[in-house]
Amino acid sequence: MRFLTAGESHGQAVSAIIEGFPKGVKIEASLINKELKKRMVGFGRGKRMGIEHDRVEIVSGLRNKITLGSPICVLVKNKDHKIFTQKKDGLKILAVPRPGHADLAGCLKYCEQDVRNILERSSARETVTRVCVGAVCKQFLAGFNIKISSFVSGVGKISSAARPKSIEEIIKKTGKSKLNCIDSEKEKLMIEEINSARRLGDTVGGIVEVWASGVCAGLGSVMHFDKRLDAKISAYLMSIPSVKAVEIGAGFKYAGLRGSVSHDTIHFSADKGFWRKSNNCGGIEGGISNGEPIVTRIAVKPIPTLKDSLISVNISTKKKQKAPVVRSDVCVVESAGVIAENMLAICLTESLLDKFGSDSLKEIKNNFRYYFKTLS
Amino acid sequence: MRFLTAGESHGQAVSAIIEGFPKGVKIEASLINKELKKRMVGFGRGKRMGIEHDRVEIVSGLRNKITLGSPICVLVKNKDHKIFTQKKDGLKILAVPRPGHADLAGCLKYCEQDVRNILERSSARETVTRVCVGAVCKQFLAGFNIKISSFVSGVGKISSAARPKSIEEIIKKTGKSKLNCIDSEKEKLMIEEINSARRLGDTVGGIVEVWASGVCAGLGSVMHFDKRLDAKISAYLMSIPSVKAVEIGAGFKYAGLRGSVSHDTIHFSADKGFWRKSNNCGGIEGGISNGEPIVTRIAVKPIPTLKDSLISVNISTKKKQKAPVVRSDVCVVESAGVIAENMLAICLTESLLDKFGSDSLKEIKNNFRYYFKTLS
Amino acid sequence: MRFLTAGESHGQAVSAIIEGFPKGVKIEASLINKELKKRMVGFGRGKRMGIEHDRVEIVSGLRNKITLGSPICVLVKNKDHKIFTQKKDGLKILAVPRPGHADLAGCLKYCEQDVRNILERSSARETVTRVCVGAVCKQFLAGFNIKISSFVSGVGKISSAARPKSIEEIIKKTGKSKLNCIDSEKEKLMIEEINSARRLGDTVGGIVEVWASGVCAGLGSVMHFDKRLDAKISAYLMSIPSVKAVEIGAGFKYAGLRGSVSHDTIHFSADKGFWRKSNNCGGIEGGISNGEPIVTRIAVKPIPTLKDSLISVNISTKKKQKAPVVRSDVCVVESAGVIAENMLAICLTESLLDKFGSDSLKEIKNNFRYYFKTLS
Amino acid sequence: MRFLTAGESHGQAVSAIIEGFPKGVKIEASLINKELKKRMVGFGRGKRMGIEHDRVEIVSGLRNKITLGSPICVLVKNKDHKIFTQKKDGLKILAVPRPGHADLAGCLKYCEQDVRNILERSSARETVTRVCVGAVCKQFLAGFNIKISSFVSGVGKISSAARPKSIEEIIKKTGKSKLNCIDSEKEKLMIEEINSARRLGDTVGGIVEVWASGVCAGLGSVMHFDKRLDAKISAYLMSIPSVKAVEIGAGFKYAGLRGSVSHDTIHFSADKGFWRKSNNCGGIEGGISNGEPIVTRIAVKPIPTLKDSLISVNISTKKKQKAPVVRSDVCVVESAGVIAENMLAICLTESLLDKFGSDSLKEIKNNFRYYFKTLS
Repeated sequence: MRFLTAGESHGQAVSAIIEGFPKGVKIEASLINKELKKRMVGFGRGKRMGIEHDRVEIVSGLRNKITLGSPICVLVKNKDHKIFTQKKDGLKILAVPRPGHADLAGCLKYCEQDVRNILERSSARETVTRVCVGAVCKQFLAGFNIKISSFVSGVGKISSAARPKSIEEIIKKTGKSKLNCIDSEKEKLMIEEINSARRLGDTVGGIVEVWASGVCAGLGSVMHFDKRLDAKISAYLMSIPSVKAVEIGAGFKYAGLRGSVSHDTIHFSADKGFWRKSNNCGGIEGGISNGEPIVTRIAVKPIPTLKDSLISVNISTKKKQKAPVVRSDVCVVESAGVIAENMLAICLTESLLDKFGSDSLKEIKNNFRYYFKTLS
Repeated sequence: MRFLTAGESHGQAVSAIIEGFPKGVKIEASLINKELKKRMVGFGRGKRMGIEHDRVEIVSGLRNKITLGSPICVLVKNKDHKIFTQKKDGLKILAVPRPGHADLAGCLKYCEQDVRNILERSSARETVTRVCVGAVCKQFLAGFNIKISSFVSGVGKISSAARPKSIEEIIKKTGKSKLNCIDSEKEKLMIEEINSARRLGDTVGGIVEVWASGVCAGLGSVMHFDKRLDAKISAYLMSIPSVKAVEIGAGFKYAGLRGSVSHDTIHFSADKGFWRKSNNCGGIEGGISNGEPIVTRIAVKPIPTLKDSLISVNISTKKKQKAPVVRSDVCVVESAGVIAENMLAICLTESLLDKFGSDSLKEIKNNFRYYFKTLS
Repeated sequence: MRFLTAGESHGQAVSAIIEGFPKGVKIEASLINKELKKRMVGFGRGKRMGIEHDRVEIVSGLRNKITLGSPICVLVKNKDHKIFTQKKDGLKILAVPRPGHADLAGCLKYCEQDVRNILERSSARETVTRVCVGAVCKQFLAGFNIKISSFVSGVGKISSAARPKSIEEIIKKTGKSKLNCIDSEKEKLMIEEINSARRLGDTVGGIVEVWASGVCAGLGSVMHFDKRLDAKISAYLMSIPSVKAVEIGAGFKYAGLRGSVSHDTIHFSADKGFWRKSNNCGGIEGGISNGEPIVTRIAVKPIPTLKDSLISVNISTKKKQKAPVVRSDVCVVESAGVIAENMLAICLTESLLDKFGSDSLKEIKNNFRYYFKTLS
Repeated sequence: MRFLTAGESHGQAVSAIIEGFPKGVKIEASLINKELKKRMVGFGRGKRMGIEHDRVEIVSGLRNKITLGSPICVLVKNKDHKIFTQKKDGLKILAVPRPGHADLAGCLKYCEQDVRNILERSSARETVTRVCVGAVCKQFLAGFNIKISSFVSGVGKISSAARPKSIEEIIKKTGKSKLNCIDSEKEKLMIEEINSARRLGDTVGGIVEVWASGVCAGLGSVMHFDKRLDAKISAYLMSIPSVKAVEIGAGFKYAGLRGSVSHDTIHFSADKGFWRKSNNCGGIEGGISNGEPIVTRIAVKPIPTLKDSLISVNISTKKKQKAPVVRSDVCVVESAGVIAENMLAICLTESLLDKFGSDSLKEIKNNFRYYFKTLS
């Protein structure tokens, strides 16, 4: 499976094409829209979120809701694209890059003078298409009992030490949360942290944990570095705008632990097959899934667009100038979690198709069943 | 550029082929051997390190030390490969997988009963070939004034808060260190931490920081997720055996900072061009290098092979059994740093060739010079 | 550069996303529409061509007609898509595969019972998107004086031995032709061949030659088989529906020639640099372009959909049954030439970007100019 | 599966690494050596063939002759590599490129003055490694009853119209032939054609047909152009040095046939499943294998190195000069057939692994069996 995405923040639409997705999978547009909505809403999101009501159009790849094995094209129209279609003369050049964004690095890379020509694509609006692709993958994974969920474990200086026992616990507890948390006490403090930042015209980052349960042992590979499941997941999550760190399982905590207490001892029982008493490795050993839940954690930096904007330089005059003030959010940690869930869904779908073939659901399911029998 | 590696831990040799490496680059085998030696020695390494004296053979791709543009094949013989060539009957099946290794996940993936058939490839011996490839890349990068270095900032429960000002400081200070540290006070404690673990037959992990300086703005891309420099670096580092977390720049610290104080303000001066007052972003914004040093940090888990081995299960009897005791190291944090340097060198070489073409050094240098002029 | 296409023959639209296309290239939708029209019209085309008036929508990737370096999404609506949106019950299953199409092989591959679920994607309608991508590439190549053109040299049993001296001659002569020929005498016989087939309810194939001029020496590579320009061109042309053979330069004629008379002697003159007296190698030696025009030739099989349809088998009953009669063309040789031109444009664009980088037109042009100076 | 090859014609060795090859396949080095010998000997081969006795060393990837799923590294030493290790001063620069070789195009591409630095890699010696990779693949394919064979159908002006009924007929008849022919009458004339060219110090090309039988329906794909089996085969065959044309099935003959007589009607019988009365499509429809034998044909150009060498230009003086006279063969058509067989074996192995997974032979065989049952 491979996919490409397209679209500028204020262009006509954002879109994606997924190629190599198997035949025979039922895809509900409503489930894609549900993920899109989760991406949009959130306690820390700003005004634009109010004007957007993203709805996916599935342009091709389905017949009567069932995938044909042909490329799937999805499209989400941008409500707000007047700016983009204006004549060149109608818009002044944007000459001051915002620190923390792709603005300056992008202008240098592309020999560009107008920051707008960079930010239109580097905008997080692009993640709409990744969520669409992920939401298609989630519907495929559901057929193999793979569930993916996330929760916010830190916002600004507030962090929660609560550890869920299962993905079911995450789903249940976050279902009742305003901020996608599993720790209702700390959630109140996190909300206050966001409110405090908002009052000051500031922004705040955080930490999200993303889980996948039901992943069979044997995905990924130890044979070449780029086939390792941990390496792939790491790239997929780090590629999300604002993400600056990725942990698998105990992550940095491993550094402080001795070997005798940190590794997950192996057990066997007739009903469960092989299982572990702990899951410090986050479901991956030697680059291969081991049957335990995949556990990852990402750090999300504060949004770099501020009311009291940061010091920068005018690209053409080379004079010091404050970055422009643009409509923005206060905290996107929840949204980053939704995007991360969907990136993980894409990664796991690809890994599953690598192992079991990718032509038709019927064939994949058979191959999977046969393999699964050999596991215990 | 692309490369493949091959070789089992106790096979005849490990090897690699690098394809797409430019013509006209001078490659000294001695500089590859130097990196191989750095990988081998180290305060926490065990006995096997004593018997290996890895020396690279460059089988093809050079003429009179200069690359031909043709694939480069390198080979490092294994000193210790009697075990591997013994007859099947001569070796008992290894039926108990070690927790923390690829052993069980690999056996399940490949429908395998003999753990030896998995561990021969999943052994960290494979990183010898990555270091060879990286050491070739380092010699290419040197022609563009790109330097790569690393230092250990944590071992077990000891961590150092010392921050280097430049890569030159890292090189200078680690040059005098036994443990590749820049903090001589904390180094003593780290050494004691390793000795303590050794006395207990235990193992210990740690944290390494890897820097690259001299990287021009504009490598990587914001246009598709898999072209982002942060995503690529993340995959390359997470693919190293035992690495469980990757940070770029401030990493997880970002989560606790407000936007107003965390982003790197932009400045310009005639001699330096654009520059930043801080480097929290670790030299990458929007997936693109911004001209500041690339700063990454990795967590290394403790080695899972212990003198008092961990609880496991016999694959064929399904009975509880202790994992086998195998010759091993106490702490490989320094080595992980060497491997990480070389993986970063590979990643940056690929990114540079993506931007400037890859046929001949002469042409790449011209393209680079032209682009560099446009940067300021 | 990479691209994906999507869309079924009777779906809502066909579409493509091009990623990695450089920034700063002027793209006229009208030039894409012109290629689409050339694909549609043609002496041997059938009725559907009358109802389609393909017009491209450029959904993203441009601002004021200039590429942003971001992915380009193009979309062409299908006029005729009522069938596709009908309910399952509204359409009978198509159970008889047509010989010569993907129908049977596709049904077997995808465990499918309804041929319609295969033919919707395997339809040549998919080539609309390839032509769009190629027409974008042609506009890029024009900036490097690369021209691409084609002519029909055979239809059914009629073939023309006329050899053009230059691409300018092809463009001039085909401009006056009804059948995209350069041989007006033979053209009359070819038209009669098509009319004769039409009268009999039969179909007819042919031969097209595709040229590219202005291609600098040095594209492609001899270092690994999959980088060879001849290998890539061969795949791109053979991938066109109905194409069953590809020749480069003298192709099969080489088999009958001695070495002493078949190779293209090398000459040099101050104004032209290196040049050849002949071009039997079709502009490619050792997998690398040599500066002479790229010359390729393809064989196009007769359309397999016939009025008096072919013998087949009902997939579900396994009984002998005639293939269904579907609206179709008599001869698509001209169209195949248009598609082949555009596939060659894609291939050459990718090869050029591989050699000179792909960020911005300004940078690529500089890199090209520098390299070009070294050529003579 | 992916592979890289390395090695210069007069370097120490040529080598290859195959990654992604399944676990559990028995590989006999003797069968690789047999293919290497077939590549070397041949009626039209020259002197160097006499001094080489290529023997493969399998450096890694096997244990007790069984693949481990790890990368396979193979190495073939060059007997004749004194030239290459000589000091720069010991060898004069080779300044005159030979027409018909990569010499000039390569020098231009790589800004190179010494032709030797190009020809060392562009030499057909590189095909030794492709044959090794193919010979490994053939042993895998044999487990699925896939056989691959070739025969020479033309040398110079002599061509044979004999058509084999099956691959068994090819194997049987070529087994008795000096020139790998199935037409003993024409073979005599072909041998005379080679002798005649040899007497004149000239060279001669020809035509080879390559078959694969036992390929199940469903390999390749119609969903994206680069996944089509015909496109892939075309690239793999066209990438062989000296090959200038590729046909699938009837190839160019299709151009002269009407649709009513050229397509392969579909039939069904309980024992064989779906079958065809003819095989003009060469076993591929819509880019997908249809269960009939894969039939391809390639044109091989005459070797460009001649005793009475061709007119060329000295790269540094730019003066007219004859190309150097180098030891060479008269006709390599047979060898090209051996290489083509092995390239086809690689291509089919990759396609099979794409469809059925690639971890272990046991799992692939199960997946294959299940799919095979659905075919009829």
